[in-house]
Amino acid sequence: MRLLLISNSTMPGEPYLDYPKHEMKKFLGEKPVKALFIPYAAVTFSFDLYVEKVQERFAEIGHSVVGIHTFDDPVAAVHQAEAIVVGGGNTWQLVRMMHDNHLMNPIREKVVAGTPYIGWSAGSNVACPTLRTTNDMPIIDPKGFDTMNMVPFQINPHYLDANPDGHAGETREQRIQEFLEINPNCYVVGLREGTMLLREEQSLRLIGSRTARIFKKGKDPVELTDKDDFSFLLKFPVSPCPA
Amino acid sequence: MRLLLISNSTMPGEPYLDYPKHEMKKFLGEKPVKALFIPYAAVTFSFDLYVEKVQERFAEIGHSVVGIHTFDDPVAAVHQAEAIVVGGGNTWQLVRMMHDNHLMNPIREKVVAGTPYIGWSAGSNVACPTLRTTNDMPIIDPKGFDTMNMVPFQINPHYLDANPDGHAGETREQRIQEFLEINPNCYVVGLREGTMLLREEQSLRLIGSRTARIFKKGKDPVELTDKDDFSFLLKFPVSPCPA
Repeated sequence: MRLLLISNSTMPGEPYLDYPKHEMKKFLGEKPVKALFIPYAAVTFSFDLYVEKVQERFAEIGHSVVGIHTFDDPVAAVHQAEAIVVGGGNTWQLVRMMHDNHLMNPIREKVVAGTPYIGWSAGSNVACPTLRTTNDMPIIDPKGFDTMNMVPFQINPHYLDANPDGHAGETREQRIQEFLEINPNCYVVGLREGTMLLREEQSLRLIGSRTARIFKKGKDPVELTDKDDFSFLLKFPVSPCPA
Repeated sequence: MRLLLISNSTMPGEPYLDYPKHEMKKFLGEKPVKALFIPYAAVTFSFDLYVEKVQERFAEIGHSVVGIHTFDDPVAAVHQAEAIVVGGGNTWQLVRMMHDNHLMNPIREKVVAGTPYIGWSAGSNVACPTLRTTNDMPIIDPKGFDTMNMVPFQINPHYLDANPDGHAGETREQRIQEFLEINPNCYVVGLREGTMLLREEQSLRLIGSRTARIFKKGKDPVELTDKDDFSFLLKFPVSPCPA
């Protein structure tokens, strides 16, 4: 299975999807790929506009995207895809539309069979067993919390160390500790902005200059770098993080 | 209906539940009240410990709490309550346990019949039609997004204006705008830390020195103060915010 799971689309002050484009180019290769793009996480702007924004960046790296919403049969579009790309936005709407369109299993099967998958933010969340480590506001009932289970751990994208000064709400770490209380067998990767996870079959590593924070119930959180091997996170015979 | 809906338990550097205690005292009155406390939102510490922390503050204002988890029949405990108090923590676990224990309707009916209700953070969220404006991580499937619908609008507790510097994730306002896209008839009140809403029958007002930010689709957000009348938010013949 080949996955590029990116924390966030854009660093402050940079153009949309700019920082990860070189890694996306390496991941997709030299031969031009026409990727199927799933824009369902867009809530306050149109799917067409979303495809346009992503296409602009893909054109720079010699590839292209086509929006799944332009196909009459989205499942057939998945079956024929050369690569699958899922963009960020609101995870809840993304999951609801993926369920409504019966896409979870077809995408999973296609990717298990070798089709490369790129996701960022919500698109990385749905590669996990469930959406239960999203940061997004639950604006709509997703009709099931299960997602694609293409990695057996949870990602928390946009992982953030501190609250703004003077704010008393839970920190991200406290929220993840709550998740671990309910889901004690599951690993959570706090994936900071500007970083991504690359899965190539049974190998998993971090790309980016910031560390990732690994959480497991009963253990102190660990900071791992792009020099470390993350593959232990894939080595569960069955998912420890029940979908 | 009498509701005191508090944004957050505690201001940074202060003892637990300290800042709202004078308002809680005014709300409950001079005669000692033994309130039923619902500690279900506690995830990383015990319900007993939660009751203890709250009891400490209630004792200072001449009242007391007893935890609902100490009753064999939680619904009967609601029927007999002099006041109902729902504490913060994780909204998702709170809602799941309220559903599992069949408490949503009994509490609503008891409060509609005149029993005073105090909530903070998650406890304020569940007074709304749904949990869909919570900030919490969805650590568990709540088995339904509907909550108690004791006000016909949504509260976003711990409302926060900005992200920490250099963080690119959605701001709270952007998340609420996404909610409004999907729920265009619904008002959302961004309730900043240190503030609360007081409902006395058909009157609603803000308590606290910071303004509240009122959101509605298609309108510019409005900042209202403790001098303003919030009662327009109650004046829908039916809930505009479908539960």
